[in-house]
Amino acid sequence: MIKLHHLNNSRSQRILWLLEELGLPYEIVKYQHMEGIPLAPPELKQVHPLGKSPVIEDGSRKIAESGAIIDYIIETYGNGRLRPKPGTDEYWKYVEWMHYAEGSAMLPLLMALYSTFLGDAAAILQPRIDAEIENNFSYMESRLGDRQFFVGNDLTGADVQLLFVLEAAGSRLAPYPKLVAYRDRMHARPAYRRGIEKGGPYQLMSR
Amino acid sequence: MIKLHHLNNSRSQRILWLLEELGLPYEIVKYQHMEGIPLAPPELKQVHPLGKSPVIEDGSRKIAESGAIIDYIIETYGNGRLRPKPGTDEYWKYVEWMHYAEGSAMLPLLMALYSTFLGDAAAILQPRIDAEIENNFSYMESRLGDRQFFVGNDLTGADVQLLFVLEAAGSRLAPYPKLVAYRDRMHARPAYRRGIEKGGPYQLMSR
Repeated sequence: MIKLHHLNNSRSQRILWLLEELGLPYEIVKYQHMEGIPLAPPELKQVHPLGKSPVIEDGSRKIAESGAIIDYIIETYGNGRLRPKPGTDEYWKYVEWMHYAEGSAMLPLLMALYSTFLGDAAAILQPRIDAEIENNFSYMESRLGDRQFFVGNDLTGADVQLLFVLEAAGSRLAPYPKLVAYRDRMHARPAYRRGIEKGGPYQLMSR
Repeated sequence: MIKLHHLNNSRSQRILWLLEELGLPYEIVKYQHMEGIPLAPPELKQVHPLGKSPVIEDGSRKIAESGAIIDYIIETYGNGRLRPKPGTDEYWKYVEWMHYAEGSAMLPLLMALYSTFLGDAAAILQPRIDAEIENNFSYMESRLGDRQFFVGNDLTGADVQLLFVLEAAGSRLAPYPKLVAYRDRMHARPAYRRGIEKGGPYQLMSR
């Protein structure tokens, strides 16, 4: 049975959602962020040297990185669900989104987060950060368009990977109506809501 | 034939290396960073809305994100080379590294880069950035150990994905002797050197 090391208000909420979509049995080990600061607690270093979350264990396997975990779970337990058929055009769009979410889209959001700690000192970088956020979110808004999901006509792991980016954007998502509506549709999914119940309070959902 | 949109001193050097390792025919379209600043030129926006590099075209397919491009090329043209057998323990280590490089390891290096633009104003963040770099590079040093490659006994796409992180670290790599020796071994590979010749001057190689 999969064991998920779950940190509150973190990327591991993705994995809870995915496990619920697939209806898989799993065990949760919960961790809380350090009091008042956005740092993972030192106990997570016992789970993985990087001290991050999510991490899953499945038998003798231990896997970190959201994209790899999603890929592993879908490949191993998905029975063809939540992923386009390998080798198709849609499959390669899927793979690109899986890398894009953390490889590109999160960076300007994290820059914006860190620059809040610097206050006015970061003013020189702010226009560049804002432009990069606009660049990425306009791109996602345009690619999503009037579709229900980011790839094909059904939910895939790419949606699981990308929704966290939209959640992490918080109020910065407001200028992108298609992304806002998409986020709200995903939040209304029964499996998503079960994931929230299992994971505990999730502030990123309601900002 | 694959067409690579190649920006000098960028992640697209990875793709040149990979194409040379596989001995594939390809076409390069070259772009230069803006004069004096680390920004991609606006022409790249004509290739992909995000205006980044690398991007490849292969027939009607256009793929961005280093990890997705490497995965695509190896899956489509590798004939089993440069990747562990799917489903094995080594395969999942490979997938984790593919996501780790850009999803985790690059972030503190990019933070360090941007903080240089802020000078003393970023002093409050510097210890945190330094700690994150140390965390990640100690991890890679320890996982590499005395092995020749990051996964298994042969070169894989994970090496192609990770070497850029080591190159981007520049002089910050010095405290990690196994990573330094690894970087130098990769730089000595004939295919790597051919990639450098094809791509043009690559400052990240020699810092």
